[in-house]
Amino acid sequence: MNKLGVHALVWEAGWSHEECARAIAKTAEVGYDFIEAPALDPSLIDVDFTRRELEKAGIGINFSLGLDFDSDISSGDQEKRARGKQKLEDAIRVCRDCGGQNIGGILYSAFGKYFTQPTAEGIRQSAETLAQVAEIAAKSDITLVLEVVNRYETNICNTAAQGVEMAKLVGAPNVKVHLDVYHMNIEESDIAQAIVDTGDYIGYFHTGDSHRGYMGSGSIDLTSVFRALVRAKYQGPITFESFSSRVVGQPLEGILGIWRNLWDDGHDLASHALMYTKAMLKSAQEAERQASERSRLPI
Amino acid sequence: MNKLGVHALVWEAGWSHEECARAIAKTAEVGYDFIEAPALDPSLIDVDFTRRELEKAGIGINFSLGLDFDSDISSGDQEKRARGKQKLEDAIRVCRDCGGQNIGGILYSAFGKYFTQPTAEGIRQSAETLAQVAEIAAKSDITLVLEVVNRYETNICNTAAQGVEMAKLVGAPNVKVHLDVYHMNIEESDIAQAIVDTGDYIGYFHTGDSHRGYMGSGSIDLTSVFRALVRAKYQGPITFESFSSRVVGQPLEGILGIWRNLWDDGHDLASHALMYTKAMLKSAQEAERQASERSRLPI
Amino acid sequence: MNKLGVHALVWEAGWSHEECARAIAKTAEVGYDFIEAPALDPSLIDVDFTRRELEKAGIGINFSLGLDFDSDISSGDQEKRARGKQKLEDAIRVCRDCGGQNIGGILYSAFGKYFTQPTAEGIRQSAETLAQVAEIAAKSDITLVLEVVNRYETNICNTAAQGVEMAKLVGAPNVKVHLDVYHMNIEESDIAQAIVDTGDYIGYFHTGDSHRGYMGSGSIDLTSVFRALVRAKYQGPITFESFSSRVVGQPLEGILGIWRNLWDDGHDLASHALMYTKAMLKSAQEAERQASERSRLPI
Amino acid sequence: MNKLGVHALVWEAGWSHEECARAIAKTAEVGYDFIEAPALDPSLIDVDFTRRELEKAGIGINFSLGLDFDSDISSGDQEKRARGKQKLEDAIRVCRDCGGQNIGGILYSAFGKYFTQPTAEGIRQSAETLAQVAEIAAKSDITLVLEVVNRYETNICNTAAQGVEMAKLVGAPNVKVHLDVYHMNIEESDIAQAIVDTGDYIGYFHTGDSHRGYMGSGSIDLTSVFRALVRAKYQGPITFESFSSRVVGQPLEGILGIWRNLWDDGHDLASHALMYTKAMLKSAQEAERQASERSRLPI
Repeated sequence: MNKLGVHALVWEAGWSHEECARAIAKTAEVGYDFIEAPALDPSLIDVDFTRRELEKAGIGINFSLGLDFDSDISSGDQEKRARGKQKLEDAIRVCRDCGGQNIGGILYSAFGKYFTQPTAEGIRQSAETLAQVAEIAAKSDITLVLEVVNRYETNICNTAAQGVEMAKLVGAPNVKVHLDVYHMNIEESDIAQAIVDTGDYIGYFHTGDSHRGYMGSGSIDLTSVFRALVRAKYQGPITFESFSSRVVGQPLEGILGIWRNLWDDGHDLASHALMYTKAMLKSAQEAERQASERSRLPI
Repeated sequence: MNKLGVHALVWEAGWSHEECARAIAKTAEVGYDFIEAPALDPSLIDVDFTRRELEKAGIGINFSLGLDFDSDISSGDQEKRARGKQKLEDAIRVCRDCGGQNIGGILYSAFGKYFTQPTAEGIRQSAETLAQVAEIAAKSDITLVLEVVNRYETNICNTAAQGVEMAKLVGAPNVKVHLDVYHMNIEESDIAQAIVDTGDYIGYFHTGDSHRGYMGSGSIDLTSVFRALVRAKYQGPITFESFSSRVVGQPLEGILGIWRNLWDDGHDLASHALMYTKAMLKSAQEAERQASERSRLPI
Repeated sequence: MNKLGVHALVWEAGWSHEECARAIAKTAEVGYDFIEAPALDPSLIDVDFTRRELEKAGIGINFSLGLDFDSDISSGDQEKRARGKQKLEDAIRVCRDCGGQNIGGILYSAFGKYFTQPTAEGIRQSAETLAQVAEIAAKSDITLVLEVVNRYETNICNTAAQGVEMAKLVGAPNVKVHLDVYHMNIEESDIAQAIVDTGDYIGYFHTGDSHRGYMGSGSIDLTSVFRALVRAKYQGPITFESFSSRVVGQPLEGILGIWRNLWDDGHDLASHALMYTKAMLKSAQEAERQASERSRLPI
Repeated sequence: MNKLGVHALVWEAGWSHEECARAIAKTAEVGYDFIEAPALDPSLIDVDFTRRELEKAGIGINFSLGLDFDSDISSGDQEKRARGKQKLEDAIRVCRDCGGQNIGGILYSAFGKYFTQPTAEGIRQSAETLAQVAEIAAKSDITLVLEVVNRYETNICNTAAQGVEMAKLVGAPNVKVHLDVYHMNIEESDIAQAIVDTGDYIGYFHTGDSHRGYMGSGSIDLTSVFRALVRAKYQGPITFESFSSRVVGQPLEGILGIWRNLWDDGHDLASHALMYTKAMLKSAQEAERQASERSRLPI
């Protein structure tokens, strides 16, 4: 059964002791199985404190990050690539020490607006670095999940098919694809079909909606999304992600373009998302059964 | 706020003391505000027993019925019309004595497969009878809600627009339109638009899905349905209706064509429908707010 | 490439010489590849005249029919089954002599409102009869395509999965499944998924819309329907079917419940359906390419 | 009736004599009523040459542009605002001399990725400048249509409601809102509802799809989009816009993030878009009629 999680930015903009404690407590209180914590700068995470709070609350954790242009492993600049590799290794250590199992996000390039096409060389170098980092991650049973994001946040993996291609290029068993409905809505021809086609390569999944607000309040056909997850027999983590100017601060606000206050009450938002996700998953499972065992001739 | 109900056929095929008691208790246990009880033959309902069970459970009740061809008030046969009028009056008495406020269903014609076009004369006679019956209903603060159903279950009101036209023809303030997503899916050009266009004429609403099984497991775009209800500012009852050969027996099974076992566990079905409906209503309310107060320029 | 056709009832209610000539000429004029002619009573079709008109117009033909309750091959009554077998054989002869290749429709039971559950025995007898008839059809290279229709028009094959099961039960290579979006909209959990799952069993396809009027003017998500046809690699006939009280007369009007005038101008309707279908097929093919060859990393 | 147009970037990246002549000729050849030419730098447009080519081809023209950060009229820097005003006035002159009637695009801010929130002061200054420019435009019967674009291309008007608010702030009768399905898919809660709610404020409309490729090959529910346009009684221009790395060069490629080759053959793309748009508009009109005049009781 899928573990259900929520992104920390539903609760807090940072990861100070107070923020960490509050975010973890609220995640548990609403009923989620785990929290996804941003590790844009892994050194800001107090590992021991975080682990204790998680244990207190009885929930798990996964991490996500995006490299910046100064640590872009798809760059032609060796120093930038080295900084990127270091950051990924730091994230792995943090994840391991907190008891996490997945590191998602834009691990293969900078997280931000590119202005030129990617190069074949850059993509290959990114894959090579990821292969090295994946070996380290493997020792701690950590999976690197490459997030497929829209054209304004990377110039490499914009579609699920490209994510699979990148994962194959890396070629490590603990490198999988991280899909996100918000991004898929912009880039895929058919979100549900892309999920089914990604199949076993899906390692992590972000729900949300088209404007990144309340689930079901945007323009994405979430019914078909959950049916595709069931059809793909996806059993991994599903994390709800939402951003409002109410919580997100700089620099994320700027990179993500969070200009509107899409909600004020993270608790209401996250409770609804959990109920919505459970209702949708159940509907999807019943749709699948309907088409098979419940459509038999009485013979 | 909308009261949420569930159709008794999710629980039981009949209304014996045992069936009545079980259906009401389960409805309350799952958390619904009221039960919708079929009153195809009002004389089969033990009013005192039903009222006591409702009070015990702390929930309300609404009724629904369809006339049969022998009591068709749109028929050219005066005796049939008289029998139909009598049946409607009986239903009003039962509804009043049980503390109900709405009688829905196919009150304006037979509930079944017609083989010829309706006649203008028949429609007018139906409206006339309904006007007389509505006066009686008004004395007990009961609203008659005319259910718009698909072409295989009546030849008169197949679309919401026709339902409104019929309600206007009757011309009584306590005669409104009863919409049902299952039927709308077959007959309307645009389910959501039809709901919005029906507006204040909506007096009762049936949710469900295209095959009458689990909500969200069929082909109806329920997201847009709930948005339309919010957009139409509908505050009335919303009832979940579902039929499986597991519960429904003759003659309903035959009239409705329930050939498949779409579910086995009414409790699981009804619990999910309640969660699903609440999640959808909340999403719809947030979508509405999103488009208005959350889309302001920061000036 | 799919051959595109139109149902004769878009043009004419019957098949007199005048009706036959007009229907075929209009079908060709609009640009369809073939006409689908109803053969409810095969003896009413003047085979020589029809063939000459088809040759003149340069188009092909396919036939469809539904058995009636008096010739129901799923019935317990041997005489009825014998009459049904005879009717199917007559239809095969007519189809062969007109140069047709497919006979679709409700070939396995009566076409109409049942009031009781089907029996295992009846279904087996139907399959047996169809196996015998299929042998005869095979000699003329004719395929029998079993139409999956909604609960109000048969009690046997309501879902695509049941259609496949029935085709397997018959077990002849020239017996396939005939899907129709109008019926699927009522019965399937997921129309697109059902098409994909039916796969190679699809032998014939009916387009239209939820209310049986103009394509794209109802509530069916036709975009996903055409994508599923492309995904299933379906290359067979696609026929547009639409019924308005403007053309359809008794008994079909009664059986189908055509109470509204959904259109007046068959030419406008059919021209639009052809343009709509071509636009949708092209969009679906591009969506498929988009997800594959156009989603490659530049390496 | 809506005039149908196509964006010049379907044909050519620039506006040299050769490019201008080819783009206009192809637009006419496919059957569009007008071309939309980008006027990012109005001085690059040879007005006389363009007008003659338009006359030769017998089609019309509309223009679009986005300001850059150096000519941002929402900026705090007076010189930048002055440059923006000048650019808008230049565009008006070009539009007038070419015989155009609408100038669309991001006229109120820079067209590009912002990293900070807009300011109330900046928005007001933008509106003021637009009011002055609108007066000049009015003398040539030119309408300024403010394009609502996604969060990555401006920080001011991301939703249709914000576009209307901005148009009201400007307060000129010839300033309206320019909606675009690609952007709406990212920002609106409900694309169709936003169109209906914008109503008479819609002055210009961009079709396309979620990934900016072939119409109907992405994830936008275009059926509901066209229904909303019909419901809003929109009679203005509808332009098909699509970008592939096959044609678009720098700097647009970089700003828009066109990393994939979504199509190779602009002629095939544009022909399909025209057929698709006509099919959809007709379907939408029939859906509207279906819900009104074709849903009457036969009395």
